[in-house]
Amino acid sequence: MTEGSVETIAGIANQLRIHSIASTTAAGSGHPTSCCSAADLVAALFFGHMRYDPKNPRYANNDRFILSKGHAAPLLYAAWAETGLFPASELLKLRELTSDIEGHPTPRLPFVDVASGSLGQGLSAGVGMALCAKLDQLDHRIYVLLGDGECAEGSVWEAASLAGTYKLNNLVAVVDVNRLGQSQATAFGHDLAVYEKRFASFGWRTEVIDGHDVDEILEVLAAAGLGDQPLAILAKTWKGAGVPLTQDKDGWHGKPLPKDEAEKAVAALKPNSMSGATVPIFPPNHLPAPKNEAPASYPPLAYKKGDQVATREAYGNALARIGEVDQRIVALDGDTKNSTYAEKFLKKFPGRFFECFIAEQNMVGVALGFGTRGKIPFASTFAAFFSRAHDQIRMAGHSQGNIKLAGSHVGVSIGEDGGSQMGLEDLGLMRAINGSVVLYPSDAVCAEKLVEEMTRTRGIGYLRTSRPKTPVIYDNGDSFPVGGAKILRQTSTDKVTVVAAGVTLFEALKAADELAKEGITITVVDAYSIKPLAKDAIKAAAQKTRNLVITVEDHYPEGGLGDAVAGELSADGIRVHKLAVYECPRSGKPEELLAKYGIDAAAIVKKVKALG
Amino acid sequence: MTEGSVETIAGIANQLRIHSIASTTAAGSGHPTSCCSAADLVAALFFGHMRYDPKNPRYANNDRFILSKGHAAPLLYAAWAETGLFPASELLKLRELTSDIEGHPTPRLPFVDVASGSLGQGLSAGVGMALCAKLDQLDHRIYVLLGDGECAEGSVWEAASLAGTYKLNNLVAVVDVNRLGQSQATAFGHDLAVYEKRFASFGWRTEVIDGHDVDEILEVLAAAGLGDQPLAILAKTWKGAGVPLTQDKDGWHGKPLPKDEAEKAVAALKPNSMSGATVPIFPPNHLPAPKNEAPASYPPLAYKKGDQVATREAYGNALARIGEVDQRIVALDGDTKNSTYAEKFLKKFPGRFFECFIAEQNMVGVALGFGTRGKIPFASTFAAFFSRAHDQIRMAGHSQGNIKLAGSHVGVSIGEDGGSQMGLEDLGLMRAINGSVVLYPSDAVCAEKLVEEMTRTRGIGYLRTSRPKTPVIYDNGDSFPVGGAKILRQTSTDKVTVVAAGVTLFEALKAADELAKEGITITVVDAYSIKPLAKDAIKAAAQKTRNLVITVEDHYPEGGLGDAVAGELSADGIRVHKLAVYECPRSGKPEELLAKYGIDAAAIVKKVKALG
Repeated sequence: MTEGSVETIAGIANQLRIHSIASTTAAGSGHPTSCCSAADLVAALFFGHMRYDPKNPRYANNDRFILSKGHAAPLLYAAWAETGLFPASELLKLRELTSDIEGHPTPRLPFVDVASGSLGQGLSAGVGMALCAKLDQLDHRIYVLLGDGECAEGSVWEAASLAGTYKLNNLVAVVDVNRLGQSQATAFGHDLAVYEKRFASFGWRTEVIDGHDVDEILEVLAAAGLGDQPLAILAKTWKGAGVPLTQDKDGWHGKPLPKDEAEKAVAALKPNSMSGATVPIFPPNHLPAPKNEAPASYPPLAYKKGDQVATREAYGNALARIGEVDQRIVALDGDTKNSTYAEKFLKKFPGRFFECFIAEQNMVGVALGFGTRGKIPFASTFAAFFSRAHDQIRMAGHSQGNIKLAGSHVGVSIGEDGGSQMGLEDLGLMRAINGSVVLYPSDAVCAEKLVEEMTRTRGIGYLRTSRPKTPVIYDNGDSFPVGGAKILRQTSTDKVTVVAAGVTLFEALKAADELAKEGITITVVDAYSIKPLAKDAIKAAAQKTRNLVITVEDHYPEGGLGDAVAGELSADGIRVHKLAVYECPRSGKPEELLAKYGIDAAAIVKKVKALG
Repeated sequence: MTEGSVETIAGIANQLRIHSIASTTAAGSGHPTSCCSAADLVAALFFGHMRYDPKNPRYANNDRFILSKGHAAPLLYAAWAETGLFPASELLKLRELTSDIEGHPTPRLPFVDVASGSLGQGLSAGVGMALCAKLDQLDHRIYVLLGDGECAEGSVWEAASLAGTYKLNNLVAVVDVNRLGQSQATAFGHDLAVYEKRFASFGWRTEVIDGHDVDEILEVLAAAGLGDQPLAILAKTWKGAGVPLTQDKDGWHGKPLPKDEAEKAVAALKPNSMSGATVPIFPPNHLPAPKNEAPASYPPLAYKKGDQVATREAYGNALARIGEVDQRIVALDGDTKNSTYAEKFLKKFPGRFFECFIAEQNMVGVALGFGTRGKIPFASTFAAFFSRAHDQIRMAGHSQGNIKLAGSHVGVSIGEDGGSQMGLEDLGLMRAINGSVVLYPSDAVCAEKLVEEMTRTRGIGYLRTSRPKTPVIYDNGDSFPVGGAKILRQTSTDKVTVVAAGVTLFEALKAADELAKEGITITVVDAYSIKPLAKDAIKAAAQKTRNLVITVEDHYPEGGLGDAVAGELSADGIRVHKLAVYECPRSGKPEELLAKYGIDAAAIVKKVKALG
């Protein structure tokens, strides 16, 4: 095993530049200058430092590389092509519909763990992976390449802070400080001391280097892992480096070189370029693979019907119960664990619980990182505060991520704390995530079973839990498949189908009892699976009630249960009348607020009667 | 004019503690210990330092106070009661449905500029207010009280960085470092050097003090405004300070004292307490009020039908055009101004443009701050990246804020950059904001007129602009009221109503032309106002086409145009068939992607035929 010499690596860097220029010019779009600034850093990492099996990019103990500055995708593709993973000719298909070599990296490619392209998110995923490596007793490191512009994103500092707190010495951030953003110079230009002081104050060891000096790059990389701090390498670079036309010039962000200029640039780089094909790559250590198997089954439940248990507490019970037999489960929380009940998991499995403090964006990114390493991360906070992490959740969708989010304290039923604490748009936000599963239990049994379902359903899962205690209404043995619904009341004379979930289900049941006294019967459906919706079951019920549906939700009228039912069933002629929270709510008692905003039993009774 | 003595202020601080304890115990919920830690700081600010007219909390040149740690609301209410603004007896109505003294502060109260309660947002609003004060040549200062726990939020560091960059020496952050979070100690406890180094590295002047030493507090406050940096006062405090039962004790977050303990605590504090009523408050300087009047009209447009102009470019044109006559307009962007075309405003009015760099959360918070001071802030970035700021937008809703957001680069029509750059959930996210207006123009005339409408419509406005050029189809004199729609094709024999907006409108028109060749006619509606939706117009059109509607949107199927139409009209028996982007899209050419994901003219033709 010999490492690539400095000259070899500098030559490979130019080869990466050539690929980046050629592929973006062929595509007619892309960011070659953002690739050129980081070419020496990437060449040094891939061909002179990182330990990995280039034939098996998913191997568990490979060093990981995250391209947080995702617009430098052509550089990443070029590096992997040069390792021999795929032919370099593929690079010229950049951005074509039929190619996985996309404009920004996605895990459609085997060497991409997390999609990037929304800036400032890679470091959080890196923190998750670094925590996971320590949990799994693996000795690989995680390298995250950031741009200087993206360091304006607060999420970078959330991640930096947690990495410092957890002393993640297996995490390395490399900041490509090329001075130029998309539309102008960054706030700090080449004042690298600014970045150095910031990372240092967030608990990192720092090194300031010339990002085009391969010798210096290798030297600071060689000291990665020393001490008990994460390492930030702050590299002064030139945007468009290696191409006189573009180097350190304004106006070249996100622009390919014209064909003639590209040819000129490639011709000039060629004599000093070198293929990576013959360079031996440091292999990873072969350590026991982490035990990430699904258990055969989960321990049974033991609730009694009529017990008063908040679904948020059932969530905590479920984590503690299934965590016993499922080593894949890890839990994260943002300093709300005594409200979300994630603390029940912490108490039983302190080694698999990660306090993320009040930094929800990073918490979701950390979860995403754990998910890429075979874990099933459950992250919890108040539902309203997941809106803080919506871009991270969106990108987790593009990442084909496997993360489970539990949002507590939803709707006006939280009461006195007031509007800012009420999740009133979370169903809409989570439904709008591609491929998401959105679940909303009404009782403890359903909540626990849905947590189990979330472990079996790969992807972005969301569990909406409630603050108030509600009675157990289901049997411990009942099952709640994703995409299902429960019909709780139904007779042949029902006038309307009421579809509810969570706290409003109990209002619907109360309304049914009230109406029954007057001889009016209604169908009541528990739509615990908001997405996918039990379309057929709800349709069948509605068709027996004159196609009339009333939806009742402790949520704003947009994007939630009502829109889901209407959006899926209006094409079939189902008429959906929505009861929802139509105003910005105030502080008050839960029952006062349910009444004031028209989603309690009385409002349902009134609506049923109005429909004649 | 004499300032309150140190003893007086310490006495008032205890009075604030008494109010905070009494009101939360009366309410049966709330955060008295989070009030007690900051009581001396707040007493010193309100009664020994800030310059304001306590009878007129909205006066333009008052010093502003933002309670970023919103859960300390009872302390804020107590301070204003002690200034004499309202009777202290009102404090005991804390959290009652009929009282504006809510669980967390909202602008239902005249002394609250921005709602708080989602942590880490106050400093951004403060940056906006500080920038606005400088713009308006007012000499008041902005004081933001933060908790230590909330400094984990990245948005704090986004705001801190911008404040440093713009050298906002009229901004003061006071951090109440009380060591204890909600569920455990913060990551740094009482290690105040951590906070000091962080703020210093973000460009702030720092002072570390004992937050219970009124003398020291007043001394560092007296030096506020010196130099050209914002000032961070890092105050070591005890959570629950002044009450032996709770001081520096775990387990007291968000818990009122039991009645007997509250009485004991009040009795102990009473002898050392003092009313604020007799303390003279420093008055503000009376300076000319900023000119924030609406102009009588805006200059006319001069497009030619058939011109190819992207709506994003029309957005830039509109800002530059109306900015000429409307001094209220300010513009912000997150280093995308050459893509969103906000740069057109920058070039004309550099003094009213604020580059916020790649930090969307803070950008929205800064906009919110400007909005509270009578400006109409337009903030732009890629639509996808507004998801980064969703919690800030949500809280802007609770703040009754007046901010205008323009999201460009929406849907698969952006093409090659790939999924991470495509706004595919923005309509859903923005519809889910209480009281929001969501607009989606298809041509340049409509885009410009909608920008005008946004200035006339107070609240959270969102304009969805597109990347590709589209032909001008409207007359320069056409009007586009919020809540309207345009019927572009309609005959008495139409088989179905196609509702589209943005790029899909042109696909619908193409489809209509294709179908016409086969003798099939359809109604085509431009639903440029997604929220409020032109419910009556669309219903009337649909009722003439067998109640059949096809919606076509360059957006995911959840929460967008299709759900809006179905959610509003299914109750009336309108049947809505949704065409939308049902998968996570890839890179490719815009027209390829519109076809692949089934939202082009061919897909519409096919769907119309399928409906028979």
